Amino acid sequence: MRIIVTSLSETADSVNHPADALVNADVSPFTGDGLPHTLWWDQTAHLLRMIDQTLLPARCEVLALTTAEQVAEAIRSLQVRGAPAIGVAAAYGLALGAREALPENEVIDPDVALARLNTIAARLRATRPTAVNLAWALDRLLNVAERHLAAGNAVADLPVRLLEEAHLVCAEDIAACRAMGEHGAALIADGDTLLTHCNAGALATAGMGSALAPIFVAHQAGKHIEVFVDETRPVLQGARLTAWELQRAGIPLTLIADNMAAHFMRRGNIRAIFVGADRIAANGDVANKIGTYGLAVLAREHQIPLYVVAPRSTIDLALPDGDAIPIEERAAAEVTHVRGVSIAPEGVRVANPAFDVTPARYVAAIVTDAGIVRPPYDAGLRALFQ
Amino acid sequence: MRIIVTSLSETADSVNHPADALVNADVSPFTGDGLPHTLWWDQTAHLLRMIDQTLLPARCEVLALTTAEQVAEAIRSLQVRGAPAIGVAAAYGLALGAREALPENEVIDPDVALARLNTIAARLRATRPTAVNLAWALDRLLNVAERHLAAGNAVADLPVRLLEEAHLVCAEDIAACRAMGEHGAALIADGDTLLTHCNAGALATAGMGSALAPIFVAHQAGKHIEVFVDETRPVLQGARLTAWELQRAGIPLTLIADNMAAHFMRRGNIRAIFVGADRIAANGDVANKIGTYGLAVLAREHQIPLYVVAPRSTIDLALPDGDAIPIEERAAAEVTHVRGVSIAPEGVRVANPAFDVTPARYVAAIVTDAGIVRPPYDAGLRALFQ
Repeated sequence: MRIIVTSLSETADSVNHPADALVNADVSPFTGDGLPHTLWWDQTAHLLRMIDQTLLPARCEVLALTTAEQVAEAIRSLQVRGAPAIGVAAAYGLALGAREALPENEVIDPDVALARLNTIAARLRATRPTAVNLAWALDRLLNVAERHLAAGNAVADLPVRLLEEAHLVCAEDIAACRAMGEHGAALIADGDTLLTHCNAGALATAGMGSALAPIFVAHQAGKHIEVFVDETRPVLQGARLTAWELQRAGIPLTLIADNMAAHFMRRGNIRAIFVGADRIAANGDVANKIGTYGLAVLAREHQIPLYVVAPRSTIDLALPDGDAIPIEERAAAEVTHVRGVSIAPEGVRVANPAFDVTPARYVAAIVTDAGIVRPPYDAGLRALFQ
Repeated sequence: MRIIVTSLSETADSVNHPADALVNADVSPFTGDGLPHTLWWDQTAHLLRMIDQTLLPARCEVLALTTAEQVAEAIRSLQVRGAPAIGVAAAYGLALGAREALPENEVIDPDVALARLNTIAARLRATRPTAVNLAWALDRLLNVAERHLAAGNAVADLPVRLLEEAHLVCAEDIAACRAMGEHGAALIADGDTLLTHCNAGALATAGMGSALAPIFVAHQAGKHIEVFVDETRPVLQGARLTAWELQRAGIPLTLIADNMAAHFMRRGNIRAIFVGADRIAANGDVANKIGTYGLAVLAREHQIPLYVVAPRSTIDLALPDGDAIPIEERAAAEVTHVRGVSIAPEGVRVANPAFDVTPARYVAAIVTDAGIVRPPYDAGLRALFQ
C-alpha cells in the first residue's frame, strides 16, 4: 500500500495520510484534455481515488479511499475541496459507508439500514457547513435509499444502488462543468484579461471546473485570454491550485496577492471577474470563498462585471437570501501559519471565516449548467428547476 | 562582534546580516513606554542602531550600522521600513556617509565634498522610490551641507553638522508621532473597533507611529479599543509587526487575512480605518501600502471613515495628484514564497506592486502632526506649510 506520486517537483516531505493508497499504473490524475482529475471511482480496485490537494503544487499525489470516514477526513482537511467536488466526494463517501454498514452476510431490517445510512450521512454532512452541494448529494442518495426500500427491494442491493447514484452525481457534475463552460465562454472575448479568486477549476469539481470552465472552453476555442489569479489567503487555493491548473493549460496568468486586485481594477487591467460559489440563495445572494464580497464591491465601483459560475446543485431555493447561509469558521493556524511556518506572534487572536456572502445586486450574472441567469434572480433561478 | 538578541521566542535560524552588531547591555529596542524603538543613534558607540524588522516577530535583534551602504542595504531589504523611519534612517545614513567620505585628515575642496555627499545621497535615494520622506530627509541634509559651506564653514565640520541635523530629523519625527497621536485620538471613541493595514506603528517611525499613534494615545488615556489587523501580504507587516506591537501594548487585536476586511465591514464590526501613508500629493491623493486603495473603496461603500495619518514630511506638494507617484515593483519571490517557503508553481508570473494610490475622495481626513485636514485637501494641505 503506497502513495502514487505522479509528478514531483520537490523532494517529498513526510506527510501523514488518512488513507492508504494503492499503486495502480493505469490511473492518472489527469484527464484526456490535460486537466487535473480531482476524484474518480476506480472500477478495478473498487475504491475512490482523489488528488490530495493539500500537497499541490509541489506534489501531485493520489489517495485511495475505502471508507466513509476517510472521505469525511479528506473533506475536513481540504484534501478535496470546492463545492461540486465535495458533493461528489460525499456521494461516494456514503456509498462506501453503505458497503461497510450493510455487509452482504448480515440480515438487516430496512429501518435499521436507513438509520445506519443516516448516521454515516450525518458525519459526512458535518464536515463542512457552507457549501450546499454536500448536503444536496447526501440527501439525493438518502432519497434513493428510501425509495429503494419503500419499493420492497433488498437491503443487500443498497450498496450497489447507492454507488450507481454516486456515479450519476459524478457524471452529472462532469456534464454540468462542460455546460457551464460553454454558456460562460460567450461572456469572454478574444484578448480579455480576467480575474479569478480561489480555485473554481477542475480541482473544485469532478469535471473541468465552474468559474474556470468558461476560460478553458474559450481558450480551447482559440481565444487569447490572460488571467489575474488572487492567491486567496489563508489556504492559498489561487496560488497553489488555480495557478497550477492555468499554467498546465498554457493560459497566461499573473499571480497577485488578494489586496492587489483593486489596484489592477483601477488601472483598467481587468475586464471581468469569474468566481465560483458554495451556495446561492433564492434571491441570488452568493456564498463563496472569503474575499469574494470585497471583489464584488470593487468590481461594481470599477464597472467590471462579476460573474458567478455554479451548477444547479449549488442553488439552495430553500433559503430566501444569503443571511441564513452558515459561514464556516476554520482554525486560527490557517492564518497564523503558512505551509507550517509561523507568520504571527504566538497567542494572537485570529478570525478565519472561510466564506463571505455577496448580495445579489453586485452579481452581473449567474452562469449555470442550464444557462445564464441575469437579474432579477428570484424568477430566473426558480425557472432553472421547472 | 555579535548580534544582540533581546527576545527570543524561537530557536535562532541562520541569517545573513549586512552589518555587524555590537553587544551593548545599555541599549534596548524598547522605549520607556514599552513601544519598540525602531532606530536610534548610539552616542557611546557612535553608530546607528535599528531593530531588524525582517526577523520579527520570532526574534527581535538589533543591528549596528556604521556605513551609508549598510543603511542603504537595510532600507532595500526592509530591515527598516515605514516612510518616516526610512526618512530618519536615510538622514543617519548620509551622516555616516559624510564621516566616511570626509575624513578629518584629508584636505577636501568644498565642491568635492558636496559632490561626494550627493553621490552617497543618490545611492540612499535609489533604495526605495515611493515614500517621499526618504528624499525629503536627504534633501534636507544636503541643503544643510550647502548652506554650511556657502557660509564659509570648514568641510571638516560637516560630518558633525550633518549628524546634528539627522538627530533633529529623528527628534522631529518622535515629536510628530506624539502630535499625530494626540490629534488623531480625538477621532477614537471608547469602545471603538478599528481596522489597520500594514504597519504604521512605532516600527514605521522613530517614535510611536503614525496610524497607530492615535490608537496608542487613546489606549493610554483609558479608552477601550479593539483592532482588526490586516496581515498585509506579501510581506506580512500586519501579521508580523502590527500584531506584535499591539499585543505588547496590551491592545486587543484580531488578525485577519486581507481579503476578510470587507466581510467584517459588512457585518458592522469596524467603526473606522486608520492607515499611514508613503506619499501624499497636493490634492490629497495618498500612496500607501498595496491594499489601501481597496480598503478605501470598501470603507466608502460601508460608510466607514478611512483616516490617513502621516507627518508633514510625507506630503509632497510638488506633485499635483497621485498619478505621478512612482510605484515600486518588488521581487516576485515576495509573492511566491512566504518566509522562504514556496506557495506557488515554479515559473509563475507575478505582479508585486508594493503600493497603490487612493484618490483623495475616499479619504475622510488626513491626520498630521500639525492637525487634522479635511476635504477639500488642496487648501488644507498647503496651509500646513504656511
